[in-house]
Amino acid sequence: MTVLPALLVLDGDPLPRLGRLTGRVRVLHADSSTLAERLPEADVLLVWDFTSRAVRAAWPGEGPRPRWVHTASAGVDHLLCPELVASDTVVTNARGIFEEPIAEYVAALVLAMAKDLPRTWRHQQRGEWRHRETERVRGTRAVVVGSGPVGRTVARTLKALGVSPAVVGRVPHTGIHGPEDLDRLLARADWVIAAAPLTDQTRGMFDTRRFGVMQPNARFVNVGRGGLVVEEALVRALRSRWIAGAAVDVLATEPLPPDSPLWQVPGLIVSPHMSGDTVGRHDELGAQFVDLFERWAADRPLKNVVDKRRGYVPGR
Amino acid sequence: MTVLPALLVLDGDPLPRLGRLTGRVRVLHADSSTLAERLPEADVLLVWDFTSRAVRAAWPGEGPRPRWVHTASAGVDHLLCPELVASDTVVTNARGIFEEPIAEYVAALVLAMAKDLPRTWRHQQRGEWRHRETERVRGTRAVVVGSGPVGRTVARTLKALGVSPAVVGRVPHTGIHGPEDLDRLLARADWVIAAAPLTDQTRGMFDTRRFGVMQPNARFVNVGRGGLVVEEALVRALRSRWIAGAAVDVLATEPLPPDSPLWQVPGLIVSPHMSGDTVGRHDELGAQFVDLFERWAADRPLKNVVDKRRGYVPGR
Repeated sequence: MTVLPALLVLDGDPLPRLGRLTGRVRVLHADSSTLAERLPEADVLLVWDFTSRAVRAAWPGEGPRPRWVHTASAGVDHLLCPELVASDTVVTNARGIFEEPIAEYVAALVLAMAKDLPRTWRHQQRGEWRHRETERVRGTRAVVVGSGPVGRTVARTLKALGVSPAVVGRVPHTGIHGPEDLDRLLARADWVIAAAPLTDQTRGMFDTRRFGVMQPNARFVNVGRGGLVVEEALVRALRSRWIAGAAVDVLATEPLPPDSPLWQVPGLIVSPHMSGDTVGRHDELGAQFVDLFERWAADRPLKNVVDKRRGYVPGR
Repeated sequence: MTVLPALLVLDGDPLPRLGRLTGRVRVLHADSSTLAERLPEADVLLVWDFTSRAVRAAWPGEGPRPRWVHTASAGVDHLLCPELVASDTVVTNARGIFEEPIAEYVAALVLAMAKDLPRTWRHQQRGEWRHRETERVRGTRAVVVGSGPVGRTVARTLKALGVSPAVVGRVPHTGIHGPEDLDRLLARADWVIAAAPLTDQTRGMFDTRRFGVMQPNARFVNVGRGGLVVEEALVRALRSRWIAGAAVDVLATEPLPPDSPLWQVPGLIVSPHMSGDTVGRHDELGAQFVDLFERWAADRPLKNVVDKRRGYVPGR
């Protein structure tokens, strides 16, 4: 008699999307309070709701543990505790699902800021007809920090709008700048897009010094992780008009508390970590996990395997 | 002794941009109250501020009049009274200046609606973190009504974002649908973009019947002229959820009065006729007029000549 592999689902309910696995896995459920107790009996852990940080807290230092962890997200910073990094457990992510939506979201923010839409909405609320001149996007320059699929798709989308993008990654490549070029590129960029994973190398990289390097007309967009930014430095840069505006879809603390002063900083657009979350993505995420499961069950090589020490899926 | 031609400027002060004409024209100024009196002495009329309707009111039925009227705008509906249409006066417009900015503005509105940015701003004002799913733009369908330079540039820009655009013009052409295709295209469009000139054929074309043809998820954008739309029909379509949203940059009455109910219609974005008005356009408009003046003064054919009976510059 075959023992079915145990699939432990952390938070959320993806089962309607996992129909093809019916009869092939034993499904267990956990939330943050029960995860530590359930982990030893699981062969596979599916982290369906990426906002949970429960895995970091619950991952066992020794003893039985899942052989494979899949997260239905692009970033993996919410998972990677030292014990998981050191273990032989394989981690995979949802590469391929979020890139286009996030790139469109960045384009939406860039165009909204160029066309001064937030001010238009404030005027509309007050019934005020106030004509202004706005900015052209074509012919401007962007720096995209992050050379993974998200950063490259953002760059391609901006280019389609006539923006000249430069992409900065961890190491220089054909068409990708290394970190040594970053400050020079920031100093002449109209748009600075943060789309990097959160790692020890990127944490807090947008600090007072870097906002100081940017042009007074520059605008900053963060669709990576909140931890890339020193938030007090961003607020200071906006209040002191070192830069002209910013939009952050990700924050150091999520959800952002109602009493956070960040909601009210002039020139700052705050959205609730939704840049990649388009209608229909749960179906895509479910289908992706099923495909990976087929490979895993057949002992074929997994795709989207995270380099746990680097904190992302390397290569193109 | 040569008599310099008289250039009459209606509203605004373009002279800092007309330096090359110094010593070659006698410049006269008029506003709506003095235009009728000044027109007979002018060889050329430059309508610098397109919001004025003074030309329609003041154009003489007979007697001396300018041989050439140039408007620093794309639309000419504010000029074309029957007497001007019947006269041998040449009318030119600012074709070439506004297309790209207007197309970017349409892209901004389309992306803002797809990504639900207006709601994000309302939530931000209240300090509310409310995650939602948004829509992908890539793979959607648009109908662009208006096959002039503005409509074609809008279509090209949407296509660069992965939208499939269909362009509808007065007559079918290669890549352009005729009016007979309009309703069929409206019935399957996610985005309906009005970018047509205001003529007897287009006035009120977006009426109750046409909004009724559209899909419940469709969104309507008007960057043409307010008169293209029966505004009560648009309001009804939004309130009855026949369509999912709309954005109008042009209105039947401009400026829209502070007490207009249009400011507060749910799902309607109102902006103050600014889609084409980017920083630096006055320099471009001035340079364009100077180029046309050189042609006129040398008796060479003018460019951007309006077909006064049709109400726009024909051809590609």
